[in-house]
Amino acid sequence: MSDDRLARQIAFLTEADKLKNVVRRTPLTDSSRLENSAEHSWHLVLAALILAEYSPAAVNVGRVLELLTIHDLVEIDAGDTFAYDLKGLETKAEREVAAAERIFGLLPGDQTAYIRECWDEFEAQETAESRYANALDRLQALLQNMKSGGGSWQSHRITRSDVLRRMAPVETALPDLWPFVLDVVNRFCATGAIATEA
Amino acid sequence: MSDDRLARQIAFLTEADKLKNVVRRTPLTDSSRLENSAEHSWHLVLAALILAEYSPAAVNVGRVLELLTIHDLVEIDAGDTFAYDLKGLETKAEREVAAAERIFGLLPGDQTAYIRECWDEFEAQETAESRYANALDRLQALLQNMKSGGGSWQSHRITRSDVLRRMAPVETALPDLWPFVLDVVNRFCATGAIATEA
Repeated sequence: MSDDRLARQIAFLTEADKLKNVVRRTPLTDSSRLENSAEHSWHLVLAALILAEYSPAAVNVGRVLELLTIHDLVEIDAGDTFAYDLKGLETKAEREVAAAERIFGLLPGDQTAYIRECWDEFEAQETAESRYANALDRLQALLQNMKSGGGSWQSHRITRSDVLRRMAPVETALPDLWPFVLDVVNRFCATGAIATEA
Repeated sequence: MSDDRLARQIAFLTEADKLKNVVRRTPLTDSSRLENSAEHSWHLVLAALILAEYSPAAVNVGRVLELLTIHDLVEIDAGDTFAYDLKGLETKAEREVAAAERIFGLLPGDQTAYIRECWDEFEAQETAESRYANALDRLQALLQNMKSGGGSWQSHRITRSDVLRRMAPVETALPDLWPFVLDVVNRFCATGAIATEA
């Protein structure tokens, strides 16, 4: 062990603490506050352990946990870009790549490369693990909005077609859960929490 | 897939959201607020990915991630028992077992057994994975207190011998990090944030 190697690892781990201050648009299920990206990441890791049986493609769950653990770290610099914010989405990739370079770069070189590989895999949505992880990311937001009585759908006047477009990765990566998703969306259209098109 | 099985899994995952409201005694590194057990769990999972090379025993990192992800779920019912609260520690085991039965019992039977097995393994500190996971749990609190200028050591007037007793799992499971731990403890004794015995 070199002292410099450990110092870099500790600098990265303490920098990561800042993800606890990155606020998302989705509320806690009791609506007491908005959730942050660190606790959201934990919730996804837990969901990955519980719902793996629904992935039709065989997945290496350990790899999924890695992808989900690191997937939002770039938000420390780039912020959480709301899924329905078209203007923010235009610059998201550029902001997040710069963030990845700075934040992952705090680590020793071999671990910078490893975390970057995880993040690139998550973003690309090409492997079974990444597709499962991304589907969970979408599903968790739906569960938070469902339990809080409408959540970010209601507070940001999101439409049915926007929600369905956002949830599309669930249809392909967790097809057995798609009827549940459609049922939730239809129920919240009926209450008015999700806007139905004219 | 049975609808009942999925319903139980979703009930468990939405119940787990409550861990985001369980407040620990350790502050965020910027001292803006105390951290919660959900974001703390995420931080441990991240640390497990970064520090595995320091475990002298070979560890299955995937298993460590499982243990850390679920290790604090019982706090939804039992609360976070402060590591230095001797009175609270007397009843901790009993309160946590009751919590495990209720919370893990929300899942389908096979998954109740699986999560309980993870939690029992974490608590027993017998496997290499559990010892590594427990050492990270202690180390992360030290890093939070270090970066926040004293954190729960200072606010609860903790003594040097209490801290060293609490950190002991780091000495055995992450021996290469022990000099770093001692250095931090000595520095915070020097500032008065950790009380030195008379």
